[in-house]
Amino acid sequence: MITTQTLLDFFKETRAHTETICAPLQTEDYVVQPIVDVSPPKWHLGHTTWFFEEFILKHHKSGYTIFSDDFAFVFNSYYESVGKRVVRTDRGNLSRPTVAQVYAYRNYVTEALIELLEENTNDEIVKLLTIGIHHEKQHQELLLTDIKYILGNNPLMPVYDGHFSENSIESQSQKWISITEGIYEIGHQGTDFCYDNELGRHKVYLHDFEISNRLVTNGEYLEFINAGGYKQTLLWHAEGWDWVQTQKIIAPLYWHLIDNKWHQYTFKGLQKINIEAPLAHISYYEAFAYAQWKEMRLPTEFEWEVAQSQFNWGQRWEWTESAYLPYPGYAKEPGALGEYNGKFMVNQKVLRGGSVATPTHHTRPTYRNFFQTGLRWQFTGLRLAK
Amino acid sequence: MITTQTLLDFFKETRAHTETICAPLQTEDYVVQPIVDVSPPKWHLGHTTWFFEEFILKHHKSGYTIFSDDFAFVFNSYYESVGKRVVRTDRGNLSRPTVAQVYAYRNYVTEALIELLEENTNDEIVKLLTIGIHHEKQHQELLLTDIKYILGNNPLMPVYDGHFSENSIESQSQKWISITEGIYEIGHQGTDFCYDNELGRHKVYLHDFEISNRLVTNGEYLEFINAGGYKQTLLWHAEGWDWVQTQKIIAPLYWHLIDNKWHQYTFKGLQKINIEAPLAHISYYEAFAYAQWKEMRLPTEFEWEVAQSQFNWGQRWEWTESAYLPYPGYAKEPGALGEYNGKFMVNQKVLRGGSVATPTHHTRPTYRNFFQTGLRWQFTGLRLAK
Amino acid sequence: MITTQTLLDFFKETRAHTETICAPLQTEDYVVQPIVDVSPPKWHLGHTTWFFEEFILKHHKSGYTIFSDDFAFVFNSYYESVGKRVVRTDRGNLSRPTVAQVYAYRNYVTEALIELLEENTNDEIVKLLTIGIHHEKQHQELLLTDIKYILGNNPLMPVYDGHFSENSIESQSQKWISITEGIYEIGHQGTDFCYDNELGRHKVYLHDFEISNRLVTNGEYLEFINAGGYKQTLLWHAEGWDWVQTQKIIAPLYWHLIDNKWHQYTFKGLQKINIEAPLAHISYYEAFAYAQWKEMRLPTEFEWEVAQSQFNWGQRWEWTESAYLPYPGYAKEPGALGEYNGKFMVNQKVLRGGSVATPTHHTRPTYRNFFQTGLRWQFTGLRLAK
Amino acid sequence: MITTQTLLDFFKETRAHTETICAPLQTEDYVVQPIVDVSPPKWHLGHTTWFFEEFILKHHKSGYTIFSDDFAFVFNSYYESVGKRVVRTDRGNLSRPTVAQVYAYRNYVTEALIELLEENTNDEIVKLLTIGIHHEKQHQELLLTDIKYILGNNPLMPVYDGHFSENSIESQSQKWISITEGIYEIGHQGTDFCYDNELGRHKVYLHDFEISNRLVTNGEYLEFINAGGYKQTLLWHAEGWDWVQTQKIIAPLYWHLIDNKWHQYTFKGLQKINIEAPLAHISYYEAFAYAQWKEMRLPTEFEWEVAQSQFNWGQRWEWTESAYLPYPGYAKEPGALGEYNGKFMVNQKVLRGGSVATPTHHTRPTYRNFFQTGLRWQFTGLRLAK
Repeated sequence: MITTQTLLDFFKETRAHTETICAPLQTEDYVVQPIVDVSPPKWHLGHTTWFFEEFILKHHKSGYTIFSDDFAFVFNSYYESVGKRVVRTDRGNLSRPTVAQVYAYRNYVTEALIELLEENTNDEIVKLLTIGIHHEKQHQELLLTDIKYILGNNPLMPVYDGHFSENSIESQSQKWISITEGIYEIGHQGTDFCYDNELGRHKVYLHDFEISNRLVTNGEYLEFINAGGYKQTLLWHAEGWDWVQTQKIIAPLYWHLIDNKWHQYTFKGLQKINIEAPLAHISYYEAFAYAQWKEMRLPTEFEWEVAQSQFNWGQRWEWTESAYLPYPGYAKEPGALGEYNGKFMVNQKVLRGGSVATPTHHTRPTYRNFFQTGLRWQFTGLRLAK
Repeated sequence: MITTQTLLDFFKETRAHTETICAPLQTEDYVVQPIVDVSPPKWHLGHTTWFFEEFILKHHKSGYTIFSDDFAFVFNSYYESVGKRVVRTDRGNLSRPTVAQVYAYRNYVTEALIELLEENTNDEIVKLLTIGIHHEKQHQELLLTDIKYILGNNPLMPVYDGHFSENSIESQSQKWISITEGIYEIGHQGTDFCYDNELGRHKVYLHDFEISNRLVTNGEYLEFINAGGYKQTLLWHAEGWDWVQTQKIIAPLYWHLIDNKWHQYTFKGLQKINIEAPLAHISYYEAFAYAQWKEMRLPTEFEWEVAQSQFNWGQRWEWTESAYLPYPGYAKEPGALGEYNGKFMVNQKVLRGGSVATPTHHTRPTYRNFFQTGLRWQFTGLRLAK
Repeated sequence: MITTQTLLDFFKETRAHTETICAPLQTEDYVVQPIVDVSPPKWHLGHTTWFFEEFILKHHKSGYTIFSDDFAFVFNSYYESVGKRVVRTDRGNLSRPTVAQVYAYRNYVTEALIELLEENTNDEIVKLLTIGIHHEKQHQELLLTDIKYILGNNPLMPVYDGHFSENSIESQSQKWISITEGIYEIGHQGTDFCYDNELGRHKVYLHDFEISNRLVTNGEYLEFINAGGYKQTLLWHAEGWDWVQTQKIIAPLYWHLIDNKWHQYTFKGLQKINIEAPLAHISYYEAFAYAQWKEMRLPTEFEWEVAQSQFNWGQRWEWTESAYLPYPGYAKEPGALGEYNGKFMVNQKVLRGGSVATPTHHTRPTYRNFFQTGLRWQFTGLRLAK
Repeated sequence: MITTQTLLDFFKETRAHTETICAPLQTEDYVVQPIVDVSPPKWHLGHTTWFFEEFILKHHKSGYTIFSDDFAFVFNSYYESVGKRVVRTDRGNLSRPTVAQVYAYRNYVTEALIELLEENTNDEIVKLLTIGIHHEKQHQELLLTDIKYILGNNPLMPVYDGHFSENSIESQSQKWISITEGIYEIGHQGTDFCYDNELGRHKVYLHDFEISNRLVTNGEYLEFINAGGYKQTLLWHAEGWDWVQTQKIIAPLYWHLIDNKWHQYTFKGLQKINIEAPLAHISYYEAFAYAQWKEMRLPTEFEWEVAQSQFNWGQRWEWTESAYLPYPGYAKEPGALGEYNGKFMVNQKVLRGGSVATPTHHTRPTYRNFFQTGLRWQFTGLRLAK
């Protein structure tokens, strides 16, 4: 069992890390929302704070005064059951509260929580605080990828951090790991933290399959582009083909063809494509089409979980063929926290692994990330199976 | 093995049945397309005919002359790999070819195929003809439900057929069928026709579950409506809730509240709701929300297939919790016919069973129907599991 | 004063002429609505009939029984003050009432009106009937141009009438008619029928101007196309440029470049462009850009009206530079008939003249036609001024 | 003729005033763009600066180095003929350049221009500088109204300036000024600066009319609201009625019904409606509907110009019935500056007068402001005529 002190340190470290991520930003960078999926950094700062205020301080700290009613309104996200919220597409229209006010809000809530923990704690608080910390860690990854989108779609293409390396090299030679047909157990076990969607450890039957020991690289994907992969209807789902046509997609997100050479916007600014680095910023549709072109397929999330101890992972979120669905015996949390995961279990795909943007200790072999099939602003890549 | 004579009879019967479905129509009814998912009846007549011409007659009947180049263009559907096509949303703008011309086209192709079968046949032709017949049977169901939509959304609400009973009574008392945990086999076996998406018979591991012996009825769903089910956010997927709000959904499709009594448009015209009849014309979102409200869930397609011999089915397509995905070892047909099923295997849900609109012998225990989660114009209902 | 007999003949002739226009149609052609501005021919037949029923028979014929409540609902157009109406974009979704039923409705109302006129008449009836006849004549022009759109946008491009010549030749040599600065009178005078928007004869002050004796021809417009007119931003209004870019406009409506030769869909089917014929099917934006390119301008409606006795007109509606606004002293009719013209007096341009689709005796020197600036499905051309 | 010194002072004063307007802003307020018609304040600062750089410094200052190629790209507006531009809807997505960088850009260009003027001047420079100054003055008004929109649509409704009074009282009693029928002269005369759209002084013939000595007040408009003005179809243009329905309009912009009392967001924050103040923030559609309801009309821009010496004006832009069209003899400037006015002369209405947001000396009796008919974020009101 985690001690209060450990939890308190974990809390402080998490709060501080969010602010470290924002350190290279200009005030203006905190405000904008170039597409609906991206939130202004300011909003992430406020929303993760609001979570602690709404679910812990309001109910468990006697005499706690809400920082501002307006903030509670502005920083609620999708928790439909907790009051009115600012429509998601409107987040980028809000110049107030200012960044300074949001930081004041953060400090106020952080201090109040530290006080609470020092004076009083119980199982309920521990549980909520743990969720709150992991919630903030999830937002740290979104915060970083949203920042990349905000800067990477600005015509000035500014550098975020000249030392941030997002392109380690996938140097292993290609091997195929074989897994034998049979019954396997899936899902989280043990007492460490996990989300409700990983629970309900259960059996699945898998047939013989092979899975690659490494991720697909930029260089391999370039072959697909050069072979006309984006123009061959039959490689694509009908819906994927519509997406390619409507959005005029010809390469992964952040790729730019300049003087006939492919470049890529990174946290270090615009750079030449590194052909040995693992591919990133592709949609599920692209992952699927690439696998079709190779006459292979994506692994299911179960295959991935069973095989994962035999390969390296964590550099890129990996699209799987599995739809995001409840495990047998899945039960939502009652009340507003129950909105956390279950309500997204339709028309999304599971991604397994982790990425360079994932905070330390935030992922694990049973972690189920999920996104809609056309989204690309996360560090999303693929691993082949057959 | 099917004999040529049997196949020929099957072909003739199928062609004739399509025309029987259209018998009650006025010429004008053949032309319109009120929403993008509905095709004009004229188009179904032409498209099923084009399929035989394009895939069989053109390649296998020596000296065959295409009826009209324009028709080939107009009646192609989504087969991206076979020439230009009329954009789907434009189908309802086409007054020409006329209904009479389309019937002439049908007769021309039907006669040519009969001739071909009488003079020459081989395995390839048998295979293509079998697919063509089943393709037309699939369209028969769409044709009927499209007709319902066309007439049911006309302010005059005309009768299609005064003898067509779509509301048999679900009279059985509620019982729960228990299935024991273990390994089960899924998928088609034997030599009878099935689609490629049913193939790759394989094992799945199921946990203990119970499934209802009967479908949810109109009366039961009315309780959900009256309890404010459409207003309780937490019962819905996020995406489902958006759908309810945006589309202003308050009841199943074709339901009308008149003088405070619920009515329903049927093939017999507008009628009072039959509370003992199985519920129809709901989206997956509604099926899910109803199950949530009952604190149960929808079965998976595997649970359904394993349990189906123990209950009656075939009156209504039943939404399952399963996403429409390839079975292990699924392989697409090469070429244009490969577009048939695989390209839809993303962001759709599997429905099992059959409906009053399904042609005889067109469904089976392993049949996998599939639709997007918001569609309601098919006879779609639900069966509870827990 | 018009006699009852003359009016009756005029009424009969008008009703018959509408049906003559429809004579070449197939039943299917009556039903479709390819764009929102085009109405199904069936709807024109019903709507012009409904006008007589709603405004005359219901109020002035004792014992008159409405043909059908549903029809009154379906065939109301934009008369917001007279009951619920079918949303305009839905007209093409309605297969019922059938064409045969609409003709029955026409006959019923025509007979009832003839009876009414034979048994009883008064000033009010004469006035309403006169409006009703002119209303139907206006719809005759729309009917014909809507038919052209329906057939001309069908991939089969069917012939409407092999004898219908829409391309007379503009054979006169170019001359400039000079008008001297001064006060002129504008607007209708006399007791003949005119619309309320022509009334309020009033003075305007015109400065010296010159106006062309002839319309711009296809050949002249081809020079504009070949000179890159559609690609020169500065020739266009900002709004017009957006229209060109968004709609990807490169030529007038119905023009098709086939084997590098310009063709044009006409009532006789697809034909080579006649370079001597007056240009048609252009938007106001195109008329303006062409005049800019020629370093001239469009005439105002007042200039046109003052000069019109000195040139031939009536072949093509001519875009003017004038916005459609009320004349000084303009007063709307009270009640529903007041919706006829006044409510459109914003963001439209006046067109003067008439066209090959205009019924005999339906236009006059003071007639003010009007359309939104991007519309092209009427026979719209231009005459230069400077 | 203006002296260089006067012009230089005028230039400095104008540049300084723009920055004064921004003084109360937080950095975040400079960045957002809540609707497409509103630009981020940062963009106004940069764009007015770019204008001087692009049209004067680049061509007339020897050895001038452009501040930044990126800025030239980002701050171009609608000048289609001068290079690529940032699509207007994207302005609010740009966090960079930062506010500090934009101010640096301003200073750089201001200094360079001062230097230029001190070392060298000629007629061309004087002309361009004059236009540039007036261009910036126009943007000052937009800047202020855009700021109002940004703050007024924020849920926190922050105060901009507690001393800014936008609601002076319209205290005069209602009188009608009569103007007699005859020929009048319209348009700018003299050598003072005016825009090209005011030129071509010309004669118009006006009929007898009366025009009010005062603007319509909030209190008078409240009577219209309370009488159900927004629900009476017949008071509205067809297009206006669609606008009311689609946008769910029930009151002027910035009006809020709180505890059954009407409030209004102002530069001082949320306040009770002042019923004696002139009405503002209405669309042309509302102005027209109000006049209809009073059984009067809006004046034309010519009537306004002829009568204006007999009443007070300048508090509110006044919608007129006149469409924004070229005067007889209007000729666009050649080149990019010709894009300034002429390209907007379609589907907009002229407004006359001025407003509390108009910079000193920026309007005059012949000044023609213009907006699309549905826009309301300017200080727009109305004066009745009959």
